Amino acid sequence: MTLVVQKYGGTSVGDVGRIQRVARRIVETKRAGQDVVVVVSAMAGETDRLLQLAHEIAESPNERELDVILATGEQVAIGLLSLAIQASGAKARSFTGTQVRILTDNVHTKARILNIDVERIRQALREGKIAIVAGFQGVSAEDEVTTLGRGGSDLTAVALAAALSADVCEIYTDVEGVYTADPSLVPTARKLPRISFEEMIEMASLGTKVLQARAVEYAKNYNVSVHVRSSFSENRGTLVVQEDPDMEKVMVSGIAYDRKEAKITITRVVDRPGIAAKLFGRVAEAGIVVDMIVQNISQDGHTDISFTVPRTDFHKAMELVKGLAREIGADQVLGDDRIAKVSIVGVGMRTHSGVAAKMFAALAAEKINIMMISTSEIKVSCVIEEKYTELAVRVLHDVFRLESQSAGGR
Amino acid sequence: MTLVVQKYGGTSVGDVGRIQRVARRIVETKRAGQDVVVVVSAMAGETDRLLQLAHEIAESPNERELDVILATGEQVAIGLLSLAIQASGAKARSFTGTQVRILTDNVHTKARILNIDVERIRQALREGKIAIVAGFQGVSAEDEVTTLGRGGSDLTAVALAAALSADVCEIYTDVEGVYTADPSLVPTARKLPRISFEEMIEMASLGTKVLQARAVEYAKNYNVSVHVRSSFSENRGTLVVQEDPDMEKVMVSGIAYDRKEAKITITRVVDRPGIAAKLFGRVAEAGIVVDMIVQNISQDGHTDISFTVPRTDFHKAMELVKGLAREIGADQVLGDDRIAKVSIVGVGMRTHSGVAAKMFAALAAEKINIMMISTSEIKVSCVIEEKYTELAVRVLHDVFRLESQSAGGR
Repeated sequence: MTLVVQKYGGTSVGDVGRIQRVARRIVETKRAGQDVVVVVSAMAGETDRLLQLAHEIAESPNERELDVILATGEQVAIGLLSLAIQASGAKARSFTGTQVRILTDNVHTKARILNIDVERIRQALREGKIAIVAGFQGVSAEDEVTTLGRGGSDLTAVALAAALSADVCEIYTDVEGVYTADPSLVPTARKLPRISFEEMIEMASLGTKVLQARAVEYAKNYNVSVHVRSSFSENRGTLVVQEDPDMEKVMVSGIAYDRKEAKITITRVVDRPGIAAKLFGRVAEAGIVVDMIVQNISQDGHTDISFTVPRTDFHKAMELVKGLAREIGADQVLGDDRIAKVSIVGVGMRTHSGVAAKMFAALAAEKINIMMISTSEIKVSCVIEEKYTELAVRVLHDVFRLESQSAGGR
Repeated sequence: MTLVVQKYGGTSVGDVGRIQRVARRIVETKRAGQDVVVVVSAMAGETDRLLQLAHEIAESPNERELDVILATGEQVAIGLLSLAIQASGAKARSFTGTQVRILTDNVHTKARILNIDVERIRQALREGKIAIVAGFQGVSAEDEVTTLGRGGSDLTAVALAAALSADVCEIYTDVEGVYTADPSLVPTARKLPRISFEEMIEMASLGTKVLQARAVEYAKNYNVSVHVRSSFSENRGTLVVQEDPDMEKVMVSGIAYDRKEAKITITRVVDRPGIAAKLFGRVAEAGIVVDMIVQNISQDGHTDISFTVPRTDFHKAMELVKGLAREIGADQVLGDDRIAKVSIVGVGMRTHSGVAAKMFAALAAEKINIMMISTSEIKVSCVIEEKYTELAVRVLHDVFRLESQSAGGR
């Protein structure tokens, strides 16, 4: 018998009616002869409600207690979904992270999964039951409730699929799959039938939030086939799979963008070993995550350093860097929070040259100034003025002919 | 060092402001040099919200899943209260029923406590922490989440106080303590400084809902001193303690009433062994709890049987009894859901005669007809027409001079 792990996000179980619809879908899968393990997130809005309560009481809430509070969102969802499945006439049984025993380390609010004991789930499946598992949560060796960070339910699903050697891990979401670009920006955007793990990791970390990047990493490491699809339709979505030779025939698979960052430049820094370490050490200590960093060659012993941070941390980061600039005698600190990062992603870049140049030329033709550039083996990212985001995405989608691709095994 | 267990109900932690006030009170107790273990209920309204969600999905929800859902209410409350205590500058740590290990049987929605492992709580106390424990919930030997039934947080508090050999178990509520009668009905009602376990059990089961009857039974069995007091004032409340000889000097300690029952009478039942067993067996199978039962001596081989049921089960019970009446050839089934039960309670009844007669005379003097009578060693209950409730309570309060008692060691 085949075994499928299905993950439903908060929107898919946002109210009683949606929970009932998801339940019917699950029961159909079971009746079609498959064993089903379901991972579910908290009902849409619930995690935010709980976070707000916690923040009304404490500015920076103790993370152990925060996990105790947040884990209840998924616990309610598994109970309600089990009831809905039972009402549809199938057998179901819910499991909290503690009950499955999804063992994690004890880093609260961003714990890592160490081990999953699937015996209780297997037992439920042998009894003909559908197993409903709380996403996002685990338990430490000391019986503490832990959570895996935002989007952690994806990780729960993939890790369970790996531990159970499931045939496929289906991630149900509110879009039809992974697109060549955001369809709300690019009308000709096309749903990708397949995408490689590597490309999906880049897409996820570049702002295309259909799948948590850590979950894709995990899927890649354990070679779990992931199927991203809509809980509101029966259409096939996008399969996230291991790269195959056909995939390299396509230069660019998709265009991603991210408008949630801000840029900081510190000018005329003395070019001395240890300065960058000091700068980014301070920023990290303040809990600010830096994304892109660009430093040019130095002139007359001085250099400029630019980097991007989450827009929500922009003011905090500016204050901190201004203080540091005085300490190290830099010239000035410039900030800009009206930027966007536009990226092209594709495993084909490894074997096709000139992809980056083609991107820069396309942007230049539209008079879009490139403020920062960052590249990896399979992606090129450019920071541009925010107001050009839509234009840039559409231009790149056209230039790389993403609307017309159908050959190449995709 | 003395150890106090404090229990706060849902109203006391009904919103963020109240949680913060309760936190300050707890921190004061700790700073005064006591070890503190706190038991907390779900925020007011939360349990009902969760129940409603479950009932929207399933008419009679699976009780295992219902417990998984309901237990989250207390889990949120312990987390928030711990955060509020930490924000007040003291150390706190929350415990779910699973984490303490409040071991129960596996009768979901009304589990019984089998054992409490207090080692983790003692460890937290040794570390100078205030322990915050989720009320109402436990865990079965199979790691299932269980709940103890409505009012179960009182039971959690008393059972923890017993297991920890606490000096006192303080039950914080929205009233000042236990009164000789409902102060909203009887302006001269007086707060009792002390009441015996036996009296409190009768008061609780007769509708005076300041304390769950099962919790008082437990306190009696383990001789836990319980202090019922208000979370909104500093006043001393009512101590629930073992009976002492002084208490018997008072004939009646309090007047209770209950307007949540309905009466069913089945007339001209053949007076044959097994008929009553059949009748009440069927009612019990339907999950309906019967309170009072009255059967008079039979005349010409027939008898009438009257009993009371919760008003919410009235229609279900009537249908069931009508069917049964046809089966056993009874004459007719009469129902009345506009009744009230008024009761006098006092350990002094054991040694004072004529208490019941005095009650009946007082009601008769006001032309209040008594429809059913039931007695125990320390209480007399009368079922009367609902519209006379307030009058009856006031009359009995006067007749037994409850406003003036101050002697007798109370």
